[in-house]
Amino acid sequence: MEIQKLIQQIEKKKSMLCVGLDVDLEKIPKHLLDHEDPIFEFNKAIIEATQEFCVAFKPNTAFYEAQGLKGWAALKKTIDYLNTFYPEQFTIADAKRGDIGNTSSMYAKAFFKNLNFDSVTVAPYMGRDSVEPFLSFNDKHTILLGLTSNQGSEDFQFLKSEDEFLFENVLKKSQTWENSQQLMYVIGATKADHLKSIRSILPNSFLLIPGVGAQGGSLKEVCKNGMNSSYGLLINSSRGIIYASNQNDFAEKAKLKAKALQKEMALFIN
Amino acid sequence: MEIQKLIQQIEKKKSMLCVGLDVDLEKIPKHLLDHEDPIFEFNKAIIEATQEFCVAFKPNTAFYEAQGLKGWAALKKTIDYLNTFYPEQFTIADAKRGDIGNTSSMYAKAFFKNLNFDSVTVAPYMGRDSVEPFLSFNDKHTILLGLTSNQGSEDFQFLKSEDEFLFENVLKKSQTWENSQQLMYVIGATKADHLKSIRSILPNSFLLIPGVGAQGGSLKEVCKNGMNSSYGLLINSSRGIIYASNQNDFAEKAKLKAKALQKEMALFIN
Repeated sequence: MEIQKLIQQIEKKKSMLCVGLDVDLEKIPKHLLDHEDPIFEFNKAIIEATQEFCVAFKPNTAFYEAQGLKGWAALKKTIDYLNTFYPEQFTIADAKRGDIGNTSSMYAKAFFKNLNFDSVTVAPYMGRDSVEPFLSFNDKHTILLGLTSNQGSEDFQFLKSEDEFLFENVLKKSQTWENSQQLMYVIGATKADHLKSIRSILPNSFLLIPGVGAQGGSLKEVCKNGMNSSYGLLINSSRGIIYASNQNDFAEKAKLKAKALQKEMALFIN
Repeated sequence: MEIQKLIQQIEKKKSMLCVGLDVDLEKIPKHLLDHEDPIFEFNKAIIEATQEFCVAFKPNTAFYEAQGLKGWAALKKTIDYLNTFYPEQFTIADAKRGDIGNTSSMYAKAFFKNLNFDSVTVAPYMGRDSVEPFLSFNDKHTILLGLTSNQGSEDFQFLKSEDEFLFENVLKKSQTWENSQQLMYVIGATKADHLKSIRSILPNSFLLIPGVGAQGGSLKEVCKNGMNSSYGLLINSSRGIIYASNQNDFAEKAKLKAKALQKEMALFIN
């Protein structure tokens, strides 16, 4: 997807919401387990209920892989459903991949060609040649882990080298890579106090922000410190929306949660 | 697998060889493409031909994911085949996963329970709570990226913080994590000059060494600088073995390559 289309959607829906499809069979309503493909049934209902309030969907591949072949089939059906019925939605494979060059090309092929996601999350540890193969696909976007929302982010991402945190080095260096205009970055909402300085490093990039809600990040702080003139944010909520209820009304409750988040976001979108 | 069993296999076969099953449909012999599952047919033949000279097999998940559902089915068949017919082989899912805690648990479940691999490779960027979920499985091993074999390893892994490279910090800090005795580390053969200092940080850990052969690492240097009293090395070769020929004799040629590597390794065992 061209970035301009994503920006138009944000404007139109007054929303920067990304709905995370982290489907855990132990958390979805019991009655869905009777279906042949409970994961897909769940996703379909969540997508239908929330799509008018969000601009992106983000399945996390771990939850699908944990179900083996059935899980991968459900992931494929989910992305095909999105691409068929809601092509205006920006799709993110939250896969956190990354390997040496020829191997990263294989991952890029898996997510951009076979599954036809608009974007994939990638880990930076292995450096330039592990990321550039993802950047060679037209109108596909690579979302690099910058500063993550978890506690373990403090172990390495905040190591200081020549007065610069590792994550800052990742942001700056990656901007020099080929086709870096196709990079976006994961920046945890729990690190909102760093968003201003991150924006000065990355004035134009879109940031994918996990950690609002369940993990305790503040939507207001994120918007205040992180937005740019093209909005520049995708704010993810997974558990807070999709597990709002584990009863028959799960989709309805998810819709209310998505709507509430969208309303909060609309205050920051003109 | 208990680590003692791996050590016994190394002793018995006088080999530290790991065969990387990076199966690319464009590189395997054309006649296999007529089979219903060419990837599995290829793997089966390679396993049969090389197993007496190696102690481990390492499918890289990227190559399977790039083939979609069929690829995942082939991966499942391959690991089932290994566990059924060659349970003495140490199996490695080269997946380079890593995510926040509850999500890493899902990946651990995917590779350790569903697929029943002995080990999985994991990226360290997200820190402690992204790795510890993998370490909570008995007799399963987590192979953390330390110093990788690619050029991009210089981008971040050699950043210096308080006189210590990032990769050294990763090695040291990870040794303090819960169940760290279940950690192994990826250390590229192309970085053999660092192996001595790495051994002083990790006297007891097994190291998985990619980059011998196609990437230019020296087997001799790796053995000289990297071995410990329990051998402590798994030395991987992928392309050099599995693509030794793309004709009818591919398995036979792979066998010769594996045998040659094993012979070289035998010089360093005992």
